[in-house]
Amino acid sequence: MADVRLGIIGLGAEGGMYANFIAEGKVKNMVIGAICDNDPAKKQVAEEKYPGVPFYDNYIDMLESGDVDAVVTTVPHYLHPEMGIESLKRNIHALVEKPAGVYTKQVQELNDFAASKPELKFAIFFNQRTNPLYKKVKELIDNGEIGSIRSTNWIITTWWRPQGYYNQSEWRATWGGEGGGVLVNQAPHQIDLLQWICGMPKKVYAKVNYGYQRNIVVEDDVTAVFDYGNGATGVFVTKTHDVMGTDRLEIHGDKGKIVVDDSKKVTIKRLKQSEKEMSDSMDMSDVMKLFMGGGAGDIFTEEVLDFGNVWGEQHIAVLEDFASAIVEGTPLLAPGSDGINGVRLANAMHLSSWLGKEIEVPFDEDLFLEELNKRIAEEGKYPVRK
Amino acid sequence: MADVRLGIIGLGAEGGMYANFIAEGKVKNMVIGAICDNDPAKKQVAEEKYPGVPFYDNYIDMLESGDVDAVVTTVPHYLHPEMGIESLKRNIHALVEKPAGVYTKQVQELNDFAASKPELKFAIFFNQRTNPLYKKVKELIDNGEIGSIRSTNWIITTWWRPQGYYNQSEWRATWGGEGGGVLVNQAPHQIDLLQWICGMPKKVYAKVNYGYQRNIVVEDDVTAVFDYGNGATGVFVTKTHDVMGTDRLEIHGDKGKIVVDDSKKVTIKRLKQSEKEMSDSMDMSDVMKLFMGGGAGDIFTEEVLDFGNVWGEQHIAVLEDFASAIVEGTPLLAPGSDGINGVRLANAMHLSSWLGKEIEVPFDEDLFLEELNKRIAEEGKYPVRK
Repeated sequence: MADVRLGIIGLGAEGGMYANFIAEGKVKNMVIGAICDNDPAKKQVAEEKYPGVPFYDNYIDMLESGDVDAVVTTVPHYLHPEMGIESLKRNIHALVEKPAGVYTKQVQELNDFAASKPELKFAIFFNQRTNPLYKKVKELIDNGEIGSIRSTNWIITTWWRPQGYYNQSEWRATWGGEGGGVLVNQAPHQIDLLQWICGMPKKVYAKVNYGYQRNIVVEDDVTAVFDYGNGATGVFVTKTHDVMGTDRLEIHGDKGKIVVDDSKKVTIKRLKQSEKEMSDSMDMSDVMKLFMGGGAGDIFTEEVLDFGNVWGEQHIAVLEDFASAIVEGTPLLAPGSDGINGVRLANAMHLSSWLGKEIEVPFDEDLFLEELNKRIAEEGKYPVRK
Repeated sequence: MADVRLGIIGLGAEGGMYANFIAEGKVKNMVIGAICDNDPAKKQVAEEKYPGVPFYDNYIDMLESGDVDAVVTTVPHYLHPEMGIESLKRNIHALVEKPAGVYTKQVQELNDFAASKPELKFAIFFNQRTNPLYKKVKELIDNGEIGSIRSTNWIITTWWRPQGYYNQSEWRATWGGEGGGVLVNQAPHQIDLLQWICGMPKKVYAKVNYGYQRNIVVEDDVTAVFDYGNGATGVFVTKTHDVMGTDRLEIHGDKGKIVVDDSKKVTIKRLKQSEKEMSDSMDMSDVMKLFMGGGAGDIFTEEVLDFGNVWGEQHIAVLEDFASAIVEGTPLLAPGSDGINGVRLANAMHLSSWLGKEIEVPFDEDLFLEELNKRIAEEGKYPVRK
């Protein structure tokens, strides 16, 4: 089969990066079919950088042009579901940017529509799922190498953004234009990875700071507690105001522990006996021997894996995975329908902070939208959402 | 002035350890004045190990014997306030074990009584306050070296206790006999250090697991979120079922960050400019340069301090600090009145989990006691508290 002709909707920072990767021949099985942007000034940019590639200022025209087999939607988050649906409706494969949308109701519509078109590929741009480190961590968990999960803990505060970042565009960091702050823009990668690797929580409590260290109405600081429903708990901390950001994920199981530092180093401790067996067989004199005598190393083995950190490779891998699914029928690493989980989890954190209490997941989606619309209306810059 | 004659109330694991340190001459300005235990079998133990030291099976008799100038109370937590008051009443200096009590109402009584006897020394056994590492961290914070605190995060799950530990004594891990689990027995050290170094939160939310991995009615697993009232937040996680326990404290300020690993290593990052100045002056191209080009090191300096870990020294230091206060009038490192803060914080975590919501600190002390008494009554082993 011929190469996939990708239509890029939105020639901003992300769209431009993907276009460059494809134009440079870095993405197997894919060429640029067309480029679309509603900013007319982008036409010249596109013609200079990607000569001969058709340019559209309206994505529907592009979808109907016959120039593209598939699209990627690098546009504001609210538009992802609508554009995904319009593409699939015209038998165009769709790769939506993360997050899949701003609220689960709209994402569910997209998922439902995509389900009615099983012959088309529908994917989401979770480039961290192609990161060999997180693929390995998921494999370790899925294989039961640290047993049943008792707790998760991710401090991910490496998403530093100065005030100038928020001032770049009118829609940024608004309720009506973006739908939130760090939870919908920066942290969706880790929110997806966490649920992909460790499953979805059943209850969520979140303490969320809105405009804490930045002049914005949305959140720049989040601290959440998860309840996985079986006693296991989780902590998720993310911020955009920590310029010395921390990235530390710990997953504690009944047979071991995994600690990921800086998304580069994985330390795996594997207990020789399960924790329950140790608890059932040991007394305090054994404890003293273990912890006072320095003999704690004897109860587990430790393996350290170091992964490189090559910028851009994961984006290329997502594009190749999507192309390969279309051309060769391989399974998608990040099916589009998975996108709703991260949106649900982010929504749950917002809703918990708005209501000031722990909430069950799934929550009342109408209530979420009502609360979001209250904030959009107060802000007064964009129409409320339906 | 002559050496302080210490009366040791309770010749268990702790009391025996302190007696040994003193008998071995390791504690400056202090000798064993008398030993008291309500278990008659301990009399023989005391006579063999500490020949010539008077033994009492009733602490009031010891207080009135004229054999002691001061006492230490290594007895179940509920008894600390009562024994503190009875000692001070008889002009005997009091060093109470941690926690100062189980609920703030009783600790407040002790504090109020102690305040009426300012000529006596009233201290609490927070041996971690004498730990040079935590003294250093407090000094760094007090000197403003990392600026205003924006968040705290302590994962302290190194308190592993097997089921056999809980089975040692009837009163352990009961509501009526001990008043809680990891929050009142193991974690009070870190709860005190955290509030000593970073201040008291204004609001507390806690997810608490009762008898999660141990056959006990009290908590073995706690995840708490703090709100310091000025936007700063905190996370505190403690467990007794993680045999590969983590001990990691992170304090993030607007001018730097301190990370303490394993209570041994302190990493101090000091920003060259405050985070606010960086946010106000930088744009996204600077951000790309900082984080993609590997130049992040240029914005802060990093200092790493390694501290030794000598078991027992901190206990000796507390005894010496107490003796020195009595003999030489030096200020106490851990005044007894400070003990209420840790009890208040632990109570707040319990109360939040019992009510299922975030609570303000200070909370309604009568409500706490009512909720605690409900659990004591359900357990049916001990009388309710007043």
